[in-house]
Amino acid sequence: MSKNTFGKNLSVTLFGESHGEAIGIVMDGLPSGMKIDTDFMNLQMDKRRPAGKISTARHESDIPEFVSGVKEGVIEGTPLTMIIRNENVRRNDYSSLARTPRPSHADYTGHIRYSGYEDASGGGHFSGRLTAPLVAAGAIALQMLNEKGIQIGTHIQKLHHIEDRPFDDLKEDIEAVNKKLFAVLDEEKEKEMIQLIEETAAKKDSVGGVLETTVIGLEPGIGEPVFDSLESILAHALFAVPAVKGVSFGSGFDLADMYGSEANDTFVIQNGTIETKTNHNGGINGGISNGMPITFKTVIKPTPSISLKQETVDVETMENTEIEIG
Amino acid sequence: MSKNTFGKNLSVTLFGESHGEAIGIVMDGLPSGMKIDTDFMNLQMDKRRPAGKISTARHESDIPEFVSGVKEGVIEGTPLTMIIRNENVRRNDYSSLARTPRPSHADYTGHIRYSGYEDASGGGHFSGRLTAPLVAAGAIALQMLNEKGIQIGTHIQKLHHIEDRPFDDLKEDIEAVNKKLFAVLDEEKEKEMIQLIEETAAKKDSVGGVLETTVIGLEPGIGEPVFDSLESILAHALFAVPAVKGVSFGSGFDLADMYGSEANDTFVIQNGTIETKTNHNGGINGGISNGMPITFKTVIKPTPSISLKQETVDVETMENTEIEIG
Amino acid sequence: MSKNTFGKNLSVTLFGESHGEAIGIVMDGLPSGMKIDTDFMNLQMDKRRPAGKISTARHESDIPEFVSGVKEGVIEGTPLTMIIRNENVRRNDYSSLARTPRPSHADYTGHIRYSGYEDASGGGHFSGRLTAPLVAAGAIALQMLNEKGIQIGTHIQKLHHIEDRPFDDLKEDIEAVNKKLFAVLDEEKEKEMIQLIEETAAKKDSVGGVLETTVIGLEPGIGEPVFDSLESILAHALFAVPAVKGVSFGSGFDLADMYGSEANDTFVIQNGTIETKTNHNGGINGGISNGMPITFKTVIKPTPSISLKQETVDVETMENTEIEIG
Amino acid sequence: MSKNTFGKNLSVTLFGESHGEAIGIVMDGLPSGMKIDTDFMNLQMDKRRPAGKISTARHESDIPEFVSGVKEGVIEGTPLTMIIRNENVRRNDYSSLARTPRPSHADYTGHIRYSGYEDASGGGHFSGRLTAPLVAAGAIALQMLNEKGIQIGTHIQKLHHIEDRPFDDLKEDIEAVNKKLFAVLDEEKEKEMIQLIEETAAKKDSVGGVLETTVIGLEPGIGEPVFDSLESILAHALFAVPAVKGVSFGSGFDLADMYGSEANDTFVIQNGTIETKTNHNGGINGGISNGMPITFKTVIKPTPSISLKQETVDVETMENTEIEIG
Repeated sequence: MSKNTFGKNLSVTLFGESHGEAIGIVMDGLPSGMKIDTDFMNLQMDKRRPAGKISTARHESDIPEFVSGVKEGVIEGTPLTMIIRNENVRRNDYSSLARTPRPSHADYTGHIRYSGYEDASGGGHFSGRLTAPLVAAGAIALQMLNEKGIQIGTHIQKLHHIEDRPFDDLKEDIEAVNKKLFAVLDEEKEKEMIQLIEETAAKKDSVGGVLETTVIGLEPGIGEPVFDSLESILAHALFAVPAVKGVSFGSGFDLADMYGSEANDTFVIQNGTIETKTNHNGGINGGISNGMPITFKTVIKPTPSISLKQETVDVETMENTEIEIG
Repeated sequence: MSKNTFGKNLSVTLFGESHGEAIGIVMDGLPSGMKIDTDFMNLQMDKRRPAGKISTARHESDIPEFVSGVKEGVIEGTPLTMIIRNENVRRNDYSSLARTPRPSHADYTGHIRYSGYEDASGGGHFSGRLTAPLVAAGAIALQMLNEKGIQIGTHIQKLHHIEDRPFDDLKEDIEAVNKKLFAVLDEEKEKEMIQLIEETAAKKDSVGGVLETTVIGLEPGIGEPVFDSLESILAHALFAVPAVKGVSFGSGFDLADMYGSEANDTFVIQNGTIETKTNHNGGINGGISNGMPITFKTVIKPTPSISLKQETVDVETMENTEIEIG
Repeated sequence: MSKNTFGKNLSVTLFGESHGEAIGIVMDGLPSGMKIDTDFMNLQMDKRRPAGKISTARHESDIPEFVSGVKEGVIEGTPLTMIIRNENVRRNDYSSLARTPRPSHADYTGHIRYSGYEDASGGGHFSGRLTAPLVAAGAIALQMLNEKGIQIGTHIQKLHHIEDRPFDDLKEDIEAVNKKLFAVLDEEKEKEMIQLIEETAAKKDSVGGVLETTVIGLEPGIGEPVFDSLESILAHALFAVPAVKGVSFGSGFDLADMYGSEANDTFVIQNGTIETKTNHNGGINGGISNGMPITFKTVIKPTPSISLKQETVDVETMENTEIEIG
Repeated sequence: MSKNTFGKNLSVTLFGESHGEAIGIVMDGLPSGMKIDTDFMNLQMDKRRPAGKISTARHESDIPEFVSGVKEGVIEGTPLTMIIRNENVRRNDYSSLARTPRPSHADYTGHIRYSGYEDASGGGHFSGRLTAPLVAAGAIALQMLNEKGIQIGTHIQKLHHIEDRPFDDLKEDIEAVNKKLFAVLDEEKEKEMIQLIEETAAKKDSVGGVLETTVIGLEPGIGEPVFDSLESILAHALFAVPAVKGVSFGSGFDLADMYGSEANDTFVIQNGTIETKTNHNGGINGGISNGMPITFKTVIKPTPSISLKQETVDVETMENTEIEIG
């Protein structure tokens, strides 16, 4: 498997640099015949907008162009390729980043990995902008899952110290959260979070948070242990995003504080089907789905792109210096 | 990539059921010429012994037999296969497990996934016993890394509410912890943990915990983003073990509570090389190693194998029932 | 993908050296529930016997032991592992082969590839003996295909200058050839071929030949172009056997001498289904099956293991020398 | 591995339909720092022009646009994507092809495989036009190999009954043939071949042929047996092109007529290095290069795109009919 290609039956190949000509993605293995719901895709793209700019309008440039695999909006089955042109191809603006790398960015590691030939402008291949084609591909995949009765919802479970209420009625909450641009269940908490983001941005700083995801409608028996366990595959994909530093399923790290008698999800017959009373295992046993909702948490570190003056080094002179991104 | 095969340059293929004829592993891609340090391998195997039986002697049966790829103890370069015979091939003892699945085990999901033809005895292919060949393979891989100057240490950072002291002098602590059968740095905490395990076992229950791992000596520039980021590959492998329910790098889930100005690891020239003042990112930026220690935490759920009577269902009659494992 | 693992949905991992402890194979991805037909498997194993020893009895040692994935003869669905112990583990008998490599064997290339640590005895990992686990795995795969209505037959289309008659009634001929130990359709030609093999062996020499394979019952639409075309996948697998030096589909190399108007297989409605009048394309268009029989030819070079005295070199002294294998 | 992605260290992902918006390719795993020789790439692209139009000028539209992975002509190391826009996006011109499939094209099999949603126009994803991005990617890979001292030459060994002279002085012949647009060594034969192509085209027909390739400068020890043998990998890639129906190495199918004593390539010390007297094995033993030139032949079937009236079927009415492509 290649490093920018992921997936077995359905695979994606991601390419592009934030300030190069274009970013894009190839999806291979899509079943033919589905008409792509562009409204749905646009809604997902809108959600991806940078924190702190929550109220700004969608950039038209973020609408992907289909260059292969789609005929009159319908998926053909051959590789589907989407391209998003970069509006400002300003390669040199960030040329200094390779020399004075931004702390906790990939400027330095990219510089080592690609021997100085990488395009550091705006984060290059490591930029958050690369999530745009991922979201576009995800929208197509999600539409397919929806049509099969599988629904997925993600909310901001926590932004710094502010916590959203937990998922309650799963079907309702998933539907509600999926229609929102800022994915928080509790409206009061939503306001607090947006306020914190704006205040922090005003201080030239950034905040971290935790996403909580729930999948309903997935039949039991899905997962290919041991190495392609459901957890392995999901975590592999999630950790592809540089900002993700932790992934946990079910009760996750809280399981460390529990006894087996507390953590075990006892089976029970409910409405004629096998369910579990609790769901500390996040719907997965032995790497295989058990029919309960799949639940997982993803921690997103505060974006390292802050405008505050920061210490760094000059990789050419090998001296300490400072950096301040305007 | 196949579901029981993992790895690109060096791959492993895991096979076996806990109560079948044998369990084992094939390692493919090993460089030829290294003499396997069997003392080192045996020490690693000894560490793997079941909790609650900390003081028991090593089972001779757990010493793997090399059936291919090794000549007079030296690695040939062709696939290396190790086999561990199961002493008690008692397939029928656990036959009821497929019918009344143990809570939070893979009895139920395995039953669905393999249409009732799986070997449920003792957990079958999902048994903790399958970690034996993984540890044997890991010992060979670790010896190789050690010879290249890379060292890896793991301690039980937390067992239920008892916390070990953090890693301090990394080189010393890694060496110390690697010589111990019960991997705890603080001797007092070690006693407390063993006592808690024994007390809990006496109550027919089990406890969870968190492992903390540190890798030193890894050069910067390692990792193949975006999809084969260092975090993706490590998490993929770690989540292959059914008991693992969470993996985080660096400060992990604590990053949610931090501002960018706190979380960013500023670069600094130290002894003529580029280092970071802090290591909240666990030595990884953009999926690539930055030369700092790689640090990650893994949460291990309390083993679901407890002797307490538990509620479950009968998958044939579809009625609620109870199970008590002797 | 690892070098000794092949296959996506169903994968095999091959291991072992001809004079090591054992050879074997792991099959991953088998559907659970099929009872393995050991008589069928044994018949396939019998066919694999070395040329020149056509009339000798089957070695009991060539019967594989199932060490995982099978319970009471039934496939469980977890990795199935078969092991064949080597009777004579005589590693040193061939030790000189690494120094004076046999012409056209892998003694020399294996020596370079594995830096002199390979097990050259009897060809080691490159020995024809490694086809034993491949045939055992193939028997299980073939039984599955048979149960789905897909039948595969291979005959020795040509041994040196002696040609067998072509396949005629496919169903009948496939059944007939599959019951024979020496896979030739025409009985007179069979006798001539066996005589040639025996005469050549008496002269301490060997002969080459061509295998012709036909697959019937495969539905149209199978194949994953462009890179996983049916031809790509089949050729990839066939060329894994060191003796195979050429693979062609349909009319193969004869297509070079044809005009498009001759080579094109025109479509025609036959008994209500779409067929082609001719089958120069071997049942494959654009890498996808078209419903006609899949046909391909495989050239097998004369085994390089001959007893005649041959010129070679001494890789240590770098001088010309001779070799004579008893 | 995904079906339109191929390669381990260096992988390519191919996309596009002949009459869609664009065709293109993503190359992943390229080392950073090489300046792409666009003259060299253009020469390779020129060679790819359709037979029968040998003298026409290069279409400017066939020059690929780099949309990622290249900065000022230099490879960055992140995925390199090339796109070639299709000039005439005329999806409907060929709409009848899905209904009355052209004999020996992928019209019918594509129709089955993609359930009627494929873009059949001009062959769609199966069109010979898809070799354009393959050639562009091949030019970059070839430039890299050249810089490492590896040279590859391919000539038309045979066009119908007309045979070119064999490679003689390899280095000279490879250089010579690589500079030519019509890759034939003997100038008289070249004229004959071009004449035959033009005569055949005038008759609305097409011709087949055989390509012979030689690789020099490849060190011994390359290849990953058993399943990633050098022959397996090369054949896998070659058979991705729909027109390829046979691949053979060294003496190929002629080996069937030989005795081992004839076919064995005896080793000999030549100028202080180990060589073989003959090269019937095409430089490969046991799937690993032996330092001799790698030689292989590829049979190309006559293009099925002929203008003669041909029999076919109507897949909707299931009746026999005829087709004539203007």
